[in-house]
Amino acid sequence: MRKRGIRITVNRTAGSKKCRQRDSEGIFPSILGHEGAGVVREVGAGVTSVKPGDHVIPLYAPECRQCKSCLSGKTNLCTAIRATQGQGLMPDGTTRFSYKGQPIFHYMGCSTFSNFTVLPEIAVAKIRKDAPFDKSCYIGCGVTTGVGAVINSAKVKPGSNVIVFGLGGIGLNVLQAARMVGADRIIGVDLNDRKAEWGTRFGMTHFYNPRGKSNAEVVAALVALTDGGADYTFDCTGNTEVMRQALEACHRGWGVSTVIGVAEAGKEISTRPFQLVTGRVWQGSAFGGAKGRTDVPRIVDWYMHGKIEIDPMITHVFRLEEINKGFDLMHAGTSIRSVVVF
Amino acid sequence: MRKRGIRITVNRTAGSKKCRQRDSEGIFPSILGHEGAGVVREVGAGVTSVKPGDHVIPLYAPECRQCKSCLSGKTNLCTAIRATQGQGLMPDGTTRFSYKGQPIFHYMGCSTFSNFTVLPEIAVAKIRKDAPFDKSCYIGCGVTTGVGAVINSAKVKPGSNVIVFGLGGIGLNVLQAARMVGADRIIGVDLNDRKAEWGTRFGMTHFYNPRGKSNAEVVAALVALTDGGADYTFDCTGNTEVMRQALEACHRGWGVSTVIGVAEAGKEISTRPFQLVTGRVWQGSAFGGAKGRTDVPRIVDWYMHGKIEIDPMITHVFRLEEINKGFDLMHAGTSIRSVVVF
Repeated sequence: MRKRGIRITVNRTAGSKKCRQRDSEGIFPSILGHEGAGVVREVGAGVTSVKPGDHVIPLYAPECRQCKSCLSGKTNLCTAIRATQGQGLMPDGTTRFSYKGQPIFHYMGCSTFSNFTVLPEIAVAKIRKDAPFDKSCYIGCGVTTGVGAVINSAKVKPGSNVIVFGLGGIGLNVLQAARMVGADRIIGVDLNDRKAEWGTRFGMTHFYNPRGKSNAEVVAALVALTDGGADYTFDCTGNTEVMRQALEACHRGWGVSTVIGVAEAGKEISTRPFQLVTGRVWQGSAFGGAKGRTDVPRIVDWYMHGKIEIDPMITHVFRLEEINKGFDLMHAGTSIRSVVVF
Repeated sequence: MRKRGIRITVNRTAGSKKCRQRDSEGIFPSILGHEGAGVVREVGAGVTSVKPGDHVIPLYAPECRQCKSCLSGKTNLCTAIRATQGQGLMPDGTTRFSYKGQPIFHYMGCSTFSNFTVLPEIAVAKIRKDAPFDKSCYIGCGVTTGVGAVINSAKVKPGSNVIVFGLGGIGLNVLQAARMVGADRIIGVDLNDRKAEWGTRFGMTHFYNPRGKSNAEVVAALVALTDGGADYTFDCTGNTEVMRQALEACHRGWGVSTVIGVAEAGKEISTRPFQLVTGRVWQGSAFGGAKGRTDVPRIVDWYMHGKIEIDPMITHVFRLEEINKGFDLMHAGTSIRSVVVF
């Protein structure tokens, strides 16, 4: 038992390619998976905040409450273990996985596609025991990223107009959070018309399919739908052209555009600076601006209280040996989230 | 006497090319000038907020207090007369200038390079009578743009680290506002070493000359000077490459970069979206986010109380017939502001 290490069994989801910027890319072999939930089996020396039997969600964005970032009160981007996590290692520089004597690296500090994993104490959120693992696991990334972007990063106000670009596993959570905080007009944008029904289910009031339209046409249509532009827009696509549309569809003077999607390496966003000088704000959100140990348990409560929905988004459940079906469905665009249970 | 028109005599500055996005470009002939101060000579029917004898500063950014923008409480970008102002006209679609029977257009709604001008009631800020015109005129744009960007747009907090790119007539005012609000480290960046002395005079604590350095080198040097990046950066250059440096020199997690400078037509700003996703905010500021009729009189008070300095920045004073000297000095980079007095 190593100091501050927590061994848990996990339920987890398959399929999210979100948060690529945090990937230990190229650090292979590794055990994938970053959304999970499970039970603490053992704790290392000095661990005080959780004990065996506790239910927890692993956090790829830890919360040490001691570093400059945590203490700033202005960001959730804890830096305590960033260097080793980026190398696929535990904070002490070791890996806790091996296969036939060969070391296997950790992935995003979580590696939830395994029966057991080891996590630093600062990288687990203790949650209530009555929350079902096969739903709460999704709060480990997708739910918190979408909901948090609305409440922590953009701080959407009641009565606002909101546009959400990309109605996948993040975008649907942005929609339902916008509904939760009392937004008026909630517009969903997706190339896939089948997403209209999904969006409506989570609070979308208007659907717009931009297929075949130029950037300028998309922006003009959305500005017309929002009486001059949206108060808040969210990119959940990772497409840098869409990120530009999202900024430019904001209202002059006060519109705030939040980038959530992760772009391909090397891609850049661009706009005329006039867009900013005339009052639009371009910002981003990682893990929904949520402080994992503090905010994730609250979101689990909200799920249990019915303030947010998760069940309909868990479209498929598999055993571990079927995990590749989850990836296939994701690529086919026919799942929102597939969960693997153990 | 037309309704809601105010005729004033003006003192004004020569030389600012700021705020080009609002120029009635190509609408010639016009009377230039957008920074001024003077005395109300006549008021049109229905004008109630000023009377003959009042001292006022013309506002290229009006404040109607009635339009969607003004009522939002979230922006200073009043839209009440935007369409006609952009056409070089008064709100009723007329021009009040002519020469040998030919109409002359208004410039930025102000046209301060003349003995008399006509302004809409919503485009004058009434100021105290003891403020000298040859200093207060500068509050009509440069001072308010710089000071306002700090206090209204970025809302710089005491103890912050601040980087100001471009130490001209706007940048110096950003520096002195950062000092006024209690910033700790105030770094000035300029290609001209002579600006180091100017910057120091207005609160700069460190000077950095980026000449010959790559974008990455400039960012690395500034990040090192600020223990990880600045809390707030300001672009006062209009150069889109510098705008990118300003964003990327912000601290991960919370740095806010405010674009003040106006770029050449067609130029775009770019960055990797990762910069935003990891917590940097890219925004802009026009007229310092100031509501002219409300905030300009307060800034005049601050000048009169010694909270901000203007006198050293008025480097030259000319008679109207010498006005072209002011442009020459501006192009030579040897003036901060030249003022024309009548």
